[in-house]
Amino acid sequence: MGFATRLDILTCERGRLAVGIDPMPSVLASWGLEPTLAGLEACARGIVEELGAHVAVFKPQSAFFEAFGSAGVAVLEHVLEDIRQCGALSLLDVKRGDIGSSMEGYATAYLDDASPLRADAITVSPYLGVGSLLPAIDRAMATGRGIYVLARTSNPDGATIQTATTGGNTVAQHVVDTITAGNPGWDYAVGLVVGATHAELGCDVSGFNGSILVPGIGAQGGTMAGVRDVFGQASARVLPTVSRDVIGHGRSDLMRRAQIFLADGRDVGL
Amino acid sequence: MGFATRLDILTCERGRLAVGIDPMPSVLASWGLEPTLAGLEACARGIVEELGAHVAVFKPQSAFFEAFGSAGVAVLEHVLEDIRQCGALSLLDVKRGDIGSSMEGYATAYLDDASPLRADAITVSPYLGVGSLLPAIDRAMATGRGIYVLARTSNPDGATIQTATTGGNTVAQHVVDTITAGNPGWDYAVGLVVGATHAELGCDVSGFNGSILVPGIGAQGGTMAGVRDVFGQASARVLPTVSRDVIGHGRSDLMRRAQIFLADGRDVGL
Repeated sequence: MGFATRLDILTCERGRLAVGIDPMPSVLASWGLEPTLAGLEACARGIVEELGAHVAVFKPQSAFFEAFGSAGVAVLEHVLEDIRQCGALSLLDVKRGDIGSSMEGYATAYLDDASPLRADAITVSPYLGVGSLLPAIDRAMATGRGIYVLARTSNPDGATIQTATTGGNTVAQHVVDTITAGNPGWDYAVGLVVGATHAELGCDVSGFNGSILVPGIGAQGGTMAGVRDVFGQASARVLPTVSRDVIGHGRSDLMRRAQIFLADGRDVGL
Repeated sequence: MGFATRLDILTCERGRLAVGIDPMPSVLASWGLEPTLAGLEACARGIVEELGAHVAVFKPQSAFFEAFGSAGVAVLEHVLEDIRQCGALSLLDVKRGDIGSSMEGYATAYLDDASPLRADAITVSPYLGVGSLLPAIDRAMATGRGIYVLARTSNPDGATIQTATTGGNTVAQHVVDTITAGNPGWDYAVGLVVGATHAELGCDVSGFNGSILVPGIGAQGGTMAGVRDVFGQASARVLPTVSRDVIGHGRSDLMRRAQIFLADGRDVGL
């Protein structure tokens, strides 16, 4: 079964929400944990222990694990295995982007059935061209996994390059259109990352045919109602992502906060 | 002492060459090694054992280590330590790019004195905006390290986004100009990555004031004479990078091949 189908089934069962696993120092502090390897592991695995049976998708941010070196990356391997054991999907936020054999290396690391770092999907960055991402897309197709390509990010600095003009379109629109055109041949398993904090998206995703990961909800200022309003008819494809507003208030508050966002999403028709 | 000064001193002593440590399956095969963790370690550390006292800069490609999971990342930590012990500089090719706290996480991973993955410099990707890279640039300033920002890459797919138009310039030129303007405040420790395989660069780097990493020499088709011709007066800032043509013919041929490229560079005035 391909990634798009697995995602559909699981979000129907559990609701459409991805919880970001961002074990940054401030989050560890809110859990009463030290910014150590043990704190990292207690927080990241604790999130999955509490929410793993209730949330469809978890989005670990690789940077916070890499910050502890190879020992932190080993913790990430445990977290990814925990997510699998709970029947949830892992969408690993690594934003990798390279060419040729190096992109093949990343595909082996994150999308190969034999890799300890395998995730159900990863984020990738298109600065080297959407075509440079094909080794990852091909590997994802071969192993039933998914890819999310950065199109329009939620930070203000993103505009200069993402709204530059190429062939009469913005760069973000070029990414959207290229993935839309390729998706029928890719089992619709290639999605986009589009931030939730813009009053206007800067690209038209109304005809997009894959999943749209929408970070920036909660602490970064986006709301579920805002997502529905901005994404319009593409709302049905949105995977809203919340991190600090769920995980940044200690372990005991995790379930209540996740349920607030799940209910919010349902209430506005996401 | 800042990165720019350390790079100047070492390239004066040893010549201007970065050797790519790309332990991909085909390179391991050329060494008679299996594509295993042991093969990865024998190749990557073997390159530094043979060349560590003779080459100024080594550029390990993180993807080939990540392909073996956390155990591969632990090998990368050993390689980075080996490079330090030889008095050479490590320029870790990770092409990271993210925002806010996630970019801080990458800065901690690769640019902090206490991290086992610390390198003398790293590559970063600007799709989320040059401004999004400031947490890494700031950390590099604080620890005497360097940053190389992707501007114009050597692959054909890179053109669409890198030559898109923003504010009357190409995206690549926007990156060049933004770094040029910031560099006096950054101790000139922020460099560029500009591929060697273009007949024209697609951006004007003649006024650039930092180091320019130039991959694509050798197996990818670039030559030292071609670099001098294309980069013109910026040639003095170029750090030519060779990988497969040095490391892809077995351990016994490493020194001879590195010396060919060092001599080639001297002969054409690089």
